[in-house]
Amino acid sequence: MQFSSTLLENAVNEFAKLPGIGKKTALRLVLHLLKQDNKEVGQFSEVVARMRSEIKFCQRCFNVSDGDICSLCANSMRKQEMICVVESIRDVIAIESTQQYNGIYHVLGGVISQLDGIGPDQLHIESLVHRVEKEKTEELIFALNPNIQGDTTIYYIQKKLQAFRVRITTIARGIAFGGELEYADEMTLGRSLQNRLPVDRYVGGI
Amino acid sequence: MQFSSTLLENAVNEFAKLPGIGKKTALRLVLHLLKQDNKEVGQFSEVVARMRSEIKFCQRCFNVSDGDICSLCANSMRKQEMICVVESIRDVIAIESTQQYNGIYHVLGGVISQLDGIGPDQLHIESLVHRVEKEKTEELIFALNPNIQGDTTIYYIQKKLQAFRVRITTIARGIAFGGELEYADEMTLGRSLQNRLPVDRYVGGI
Repeated sequence: MQFSSTLLENAVNEFAKLPGIGKKTALRLVLHLLKQDNKEVGQFSEVVARMRSEIKFCQRCFNVSDGDICSLCANSMRKQEMICVVESIRDVIAIESTQQYNGIYHVLGGVISQLDGIGPDQLHIESLVHRVEKEKTEELIFALNPNIQGDTTIYYIQKKLQAFRVRITTIARGIAFGGELEYADEMTLGRSLQNRLPVDRYVGGI
Repeated sequence: MQFSSTLLENAVNEFAKLPGIGKKTALRLVLHLLKQDNKEVGQFSEVVARMRSEIKFCQRCFNVSDGDICSLCANSMRKQEMICVVESIRDVIAIESTQQYNGIYHVLGGVISQLDGIGPDQLHIESLVHRVEKEKTEELIFALNPNIQGDTTIYYIQKKLQAFRVRITTIARGIAFGGELEYADEMTLGRSLQNRLPVDRYVGGI
């Protein structure tokens, strides 16, 4: 791409560094911003810069936070003795959006994966064990992606927690709502058979 | 979407204002930036803000420019008596990327469109007529999108320029390279028949 303005070219290059944004999309975004008020674009850039420089990670659950402790951990209305263990911040947002969960979280920052060279030490596992010990956690719900890495991580943490009296559960695997049986993989269909529910509980759960 | 951080939420909302960027994509982009160095994100936001506040439009051709006159107009190696008339900056970039054009440009800023309420007065047409008169332009090449609005605009400008001795041409309409005849619309196929070329000229043109 040939630009007649270095300012424009630099801006396009910056946008094109973002994941999933190619040069053409970057140009479209920059030309859009160029049409906006100077003030609005100033706000855009300021909000982005502030987000990066001022955002913190909750010292308790490692979720993103505006302060030392995140708004979820600080909320006394939430069940503090129920911890949902997730891989990333994105999963916290996904679960919060369901409005079905009223406990708190623990963000691991990834899952154990030999292939990617990620061991338990690189994740927030030690701090989870400390939390369970100190906070007298009653239930730990694993909400990890259903794959080998997720299962390995659950297995590893479960072993670490054997000494404590904590109920350990995992979110249900099964046929997604609106999904079709014939297109489900054997693993999912198999597990959803093993973990079948009495119909009254199923209906009650909706 | 439920966020536990206002800083994060604001940043996602700013990105989601961009065209074609939904909330989920915005979140992906923001979480990507969150993983980058503070310095890199600072650079991103600074480049975007500078682009908007410092960029100018060329006083001669209305292309984006770092100074009063754009680098294309200021380049004495380019044929100053050949003007390519385009709708937007994006078209200048597209044509420059072909590296097949060595003249200068005139960016109209749109095309005449009754439907969108855009009349000739809202476009840089008057200034184009002045340029043709003052700069002793030899050829005006219209590179507008092939539709009713584009054709109307060409017709209007052509009428305005009747008094001047300037050659007026338009880029060829035809079957795109790699396209297939059977899928071409009648209009395009019809025009490409009317404007057929001797084979020697066609081969020479490649």
